[in-house]
Amino acid sequence: MSAAPITIALLGGGTVGAEVARLLVQNAADLEKRVGAPIRLTAVAVRDATRLRPGIDPALITADAEAVAGSGADIVVELMGGIEPARTLILAAMSAGSSVVTANKALLAADGASLYATAAEYGVDLYFEASVAGAIPLLRPLRESLAGDQVTRVLGIVNGTTNFILTKMDEQGADYAEVLAEAQALGYAEADPTADVEGHDAAAKAAILAELAFHTRVTVADVDCEGISHVTLADIKAAQDMGFVIKLLAVAELKFDSAGVAQGVIVRVHPAMVPRSHPLGGVREAFNAVFVEAVSAGEMMFYGRGAGGAPTASAVLGDVVAVARNKVAGGRGPGESVYANLPTLPIGDAHTRYYVNLEVTDRPGVLASIAAAFAEHGVSIQTVRQDGHGDGAQLIVRTHRATDAALRATVDALRELPTIKRVTGVMRVEGEAGE
Amino acid sequence: MSAAPITIALLGGGTVGAEVARLLVQNAADLEKRVGAPIRLTAVAVRDATRLRPGIDPALITADAEAVAGSGADIVVELMGGIEPARTLILAAMSAGSSVVTANKALLAADGASLYATAAEYGVDLYFEASVAGAIPLLRPLRESLAGDQVTRVLGIVNGTTNFILTKMDEQGADYAEVLAEAQALGYAEADPTADVEGHDAAAKAAILAELAFHTRVTVADVDCEGISHVTLADIKAAQDMGFVIKLLAVAELKFDSAGVAQGVIVRVHPAMVPRSHPLGGVREAFNAVFVEAVSAGEMMFYGRGAGGAPTASAVLGDVVAVARNKVAGGRGPGESVYANLPTLPIGDAHTRYYVNLEVTDRPGVLASIAAAFAEHGVSIQTVRQDGHGDGAQLIVRTHRATDAALRATVDALRELPTIKRVTGVMRVEGEAGE
Repeated sequence: MSAAPITIALLGGGTVGAEVARLLVQNAADLEKRVGAPIRLTAVAVRDATRLRPGIDPALITADAEAVAGSGADIVVELMGGIEPARTLILAAMSAGSSVVTANKALLAADGASLYATAAEYGVDLYFEASVAGAIPLLRPLRESLAGDQVTRVLGIVNGTTNFILTKMDEQGADYAEVLAEAQALGYAEADPTADVEGHDAAAKAAILAELAFHTRVTVADVDCEGISHVTLADIKAAQDMGFVIKLLAVAELKFDSAGVAQGVIVRVHPAMVPRSHPLGGVREAFNAVFVEAVSAGEMMFYGRGAGGAPTASAVLGDVVAVARNKVAGGRGPGESVYANLPTLPIGDAHTRYYVNLEVTDRPGVLASIAAAFAEHGVSIQTVRQDGHGDGAQLIVRTHRATDAALRATVDALRELPTIKRVTGVMRVEGEAGE
Repeated sequence: MSAAPITIALLGGGTVGAEVARLLVQNAADLEKRVGAPIRLTAVAVRDATRLRPGIDPALITADAEAVAGSGADIVVELMGGIEPARTLILAAMSAGSSVVTANKALLAADGASLYATAAEYGVDLYFEASVAGAIPLLRPLRESLAGDQVTRVLGIVNGTTNFILTKMDEQGADYAEVLAEAQALGYAEADPTADVEGHDAAAKAAILAELAFHTRVTVADVDCEGISHVTLADIKAAQDMGFVIKLLAVAELKFDSAGVAQGVIVRVHPAMVPRSHPLGGVREAFNAVFVEAVSAGEMMFYGRGAGGAPTASAVLGDVVAVARNKVAGGRGPGESVYANLPTLPIGDAHTRYYVNLEVTDRPGVLASIAAAFAEHGVSIQTVRQDGHGDGAQLIVRTHRATDAALRATVDALRELPTIKRVTGVMRVEGEAGE
């Protein structure tokens, strides 16, 4: 082939960047055949240009990120992460005529609008498959395959660290602190695990998924977020007894009015009990999976490795090939689609189910007072089970679907009841059939 | 928006065609926003134009398929199925400048090359997401998301009818004939179920998946195909005892030489025992799922509804939006990619594991003679279990991985052993970790 080469400049030479650089060279012959033009790596901007980076030609390495971003390469791949200087560099690259491939979930979830607007202004592509769920092809299916359908709900396990921790708690009966230490030792969790265990990483991904699914601008500030650090072995055990498993879920859903018209979008991240028989119930260890519900397509699930150098590099290279093909064939990838412009609704408006675990005094009338508290708030009880007797008696209540606000108010009322010694566990239940 | 409308002509007004027509009208406002131009249905060619088709404007209905194909619509959607007249009509549509969206697996698997060549000749698009696994976004991920990776293996449950039958046999202990009758009554199986139960439908899909995964031309004639009509309750029971479940698998894989260079492609459809803990093991009823292994991305799975009017229509409309966007933005979808041009290897070259169920005479030396037969063919035994004693003794053997040819030769040799009364079951085992 005699087509002009497609030039690629990398911002970031960490684990993913090094793997992308290596694969661009190693698979050059295949990539040329798939694109219809040779692919040429022209520069790799790193923080410390003096450090040895095996597999990357030293002549390509520079610490001058601004120069790389402004080099006018056909494609600038941003793998630095974080809001700044990534945003400034990406905007500079676009204004120099470069299309951008990025894995930067934090930036996309905080200010995707600027990136899209600048891409549109300069007529360049913006692709970001690697920003959510690593290697799992997920954003392209949402943006393209399901473009003729209406997605109503996305339920995702999108953070490998927390899924690893919850899997170990479930399978080994080890408590949160113990498993977190194990995850840190294995490199599955950072020394400061906050971004993972408090759900912030999942919240950024939830915002990106929600925007694509619902054609509505959603940022991480719109996401109601709760982590897993308060999940106890008692919760895990209660879930097991009911045939459930606890997962940190990113949930993005449309709320419809009684006429079936979408009123708004609710996006939330929190631990939830999921039936073991649900496709998400079997997603173990550090794997990710995203369950999508659409009007015509029905239920779908996408499963795979959500992180790691090689899987993330696979997603980045898929985007590089897509942008390069657009360059060769003419044409553009999809731009921002936020025409539906729905409001973000508070989590109180969400319809969910609750599991509530209560330590009660084992006396006649206890159940009646509890049932009254639920009824008062319009929450209907699905099942109640009593475990133990006397002072150690526990009541485990599962509710039917109600607004989250009503469920919270019910739990607040339960805390005030004299017959209840302690509310030992409260968790949402997702993924059950019916209603 | 003032962009010129994108015109769509439909060939076929059956279940899927009627649903596509209905959704094009019902969702016109959304589709216009997503495409950037209005979408206009211009004609629906049906076999019997006098029959009432609720939801389709009668003025659009005609029996003149040639006229519709040659109408020069921006997009011709072919949903008639079968080789002819579908092929002639598609080629006519392309030569009139129309891009084509089709769900026709039989035609693509028999003669995709003609369609691709004609699309390239006339500079039009060819999309066919709905041809495999209905609504599950699968072909776009293979063609685009994984375009920067090397897919090594695809394992799919791609036929809903056979998965429904095998699920019922597994869960209800009902035998094949009984469940087939139930599936026919429920509309999951045709009156003549041959295409499904003998694996022909899955073989066509396997060919399409293999071509996309391995950048090599594969037709249905290259697929080694075996159905489920001989699967017995004894096989189901043996699988259960070992923690396995029987699935009809479409397997497409690269075979590598000792230096790691791909030597060829093996494509096969057959019932196989899969561990219940494997992601494919939990795929029940008429659901489809495709498990993909790639060098960088690792293991992925795509799960959802493989058939039905609405799910198939969702996939068709996704393709319609993609082609329409290409029209609006300029540019073209991916063309045929068969540059790797690998040979198709016979199934005898496949590396698989076997389960073999033997009715034996319970005498000293039986196991020694059987072990010798395996060893003679270079097949290593993983486990042997004896059930029962005396005349009813059964030996259940599971092998390590060996070539299919060696395994078949071993089974042939076992049939000749005087200590073996009958070989009651032979099945491949897939999806186990290791080796």
